[in-house]
Amino acid sequence: MARTTGSDGERTEAAVREAAATLIARYGYEAMSMRQLAAEVGVQAAALYRYFPTKEDLLFTLMRDHMQALREAWERSRPADADPVRQLAAYVRNHIAFHIGRRHATHVSNMELRSLSPDRLTQILRMRTAYEKDLRSILRDGAEAGIFRIEDTGLTAMALIQMMTGVIVWFRPRERLSIAEVTQTYLSMTMRLVGANIGIGTGEERHVHEHAQLRA
Amino acid sequence: MARTTGSDGERTEAAVREAAATLIARYGYEAMSMRQLAAEVGVQAAALYRYFPTKEDLLFTLMRDHMQALREAWERSRPADADPVRQLAAYVRNHIAFHIGRRHATHVSNMELRSLSPDRLTQILRMRTAYEKDLRSILRDGAEAGIFRIEDTGLTAMALIQMMTGVIVWFRPRERLSIAEVTQTYLSMTMRLVGANIGIGTGEERHVHEHAQLRA
Repeated sequence: MARTTGSDGERTEAAVREAAATLIARYGYEAMSMRQLAAEVGVQAAALYRYFPTKEDLLFTLMRDHMQALREAWERSRPADADPVRQLAAYVRNHIAFHIGRRHATHVSNMELRSLSPDRLTQILRMRTAYEKDLRSILRDGAEAGIFRIEDTGLTAMALIQMMTGVIVWFRPRERLSIAEVTQTYLSMTMRLVGANIGIGTGEERHVHEHAQLRA
Repeated sequence: MARTTGSDGERTEAAVREAAATLIARYGYEAMSMRQLAAEVGVQAAALYRYFPTKEDLLFTLMRDHMQALREAWERSRPADADPVRQLAAYVRNHIAFHIGRRHATHVSNMELRSLSPDRLTQILRMRTAYEKDLRSILRDGAEAGIFRIEDTGLTAMALIQMMTGVIVWFRPRERLSIAEVTQTYLSMTMRLVGANIGIGTGEERHVHEHAQLRA
């Protein structure tokens, strides 16, 4: 893909990406035209094609970069410690924080898979599967250690991811709850959902809470 | 709204709705044209306007009828018994069964709120709030009775709804799991998430399972 070096080009490309995510989230990918996008950014349509030769290149780039950034954020926040409770808590915290900060890009990533060509769809789904696989591994480790109680690792991973990503649908900063409060409640729900072996009202529960809060 | 009586008109209107839900789920509402929809159904574009004077009338009708049908399905499946565990189990079963059977309409309802006029958006959001309010009441009743353990009724309701509706994203009939198996696992996850007061591995747990299965 053509890429202009130098700060002007980089700023333009960043502006194109941001405007594209906003327009796609608002109207849908199929309804957005490159002409409309160019007008939004304040450049000629021809200039867009220097960065993104086709509209689908643009869509694919948004989705690929979103998944790469998610993956990198998770690698950075992942605890060295293999303890499944601590690993799961870090996964939940990172997933919620990442998506709350990227509403439009998340919306595009979740809604517009339908508009990717088969090869590119496969690439994005592979990145997604790799990310979700880490969650399944954590769940499996916890279940094997007798710490979690799980019927089906795959279903539990999907349920958790959809529950967490769903936060962006209703969460608005500066309303009733802070991100920290929402995250803490989702952590408690997650730990119960996976049957984390915490004696209700006992010292063990505090132990899990301390675990979960270590990275707060 | 103009409505042709008689079975031919009803069949055409039903065909229009079904094709519209499919096209919107595939391309998005803004990208779908009435001309494209007419071609899909095999009628003249002018004929569509007898049923739906504007494209937004069509979108609104799809969303309103989806919410009405969901509400009616829930009223039919709701147990007379006020027991919160039984009520919650019925809510989960109905929500999953309803949405799995209406993938396209669910997709439209979740994605295209952005394209409704303010008045109609308010109407749809009110219907949605009324449906979700029943879930919050069940959760509150259970918490007040000491049967559920919940930090925040609103957040828990949103988490459950997004987790359950999310089933349509990945569930495909005739793959690894049946609808009954998926529903059973989601029921178990739900009961743990709300901290249903079931002694793990004791007779009480069986009691909840029996409750949950009463309407299977």
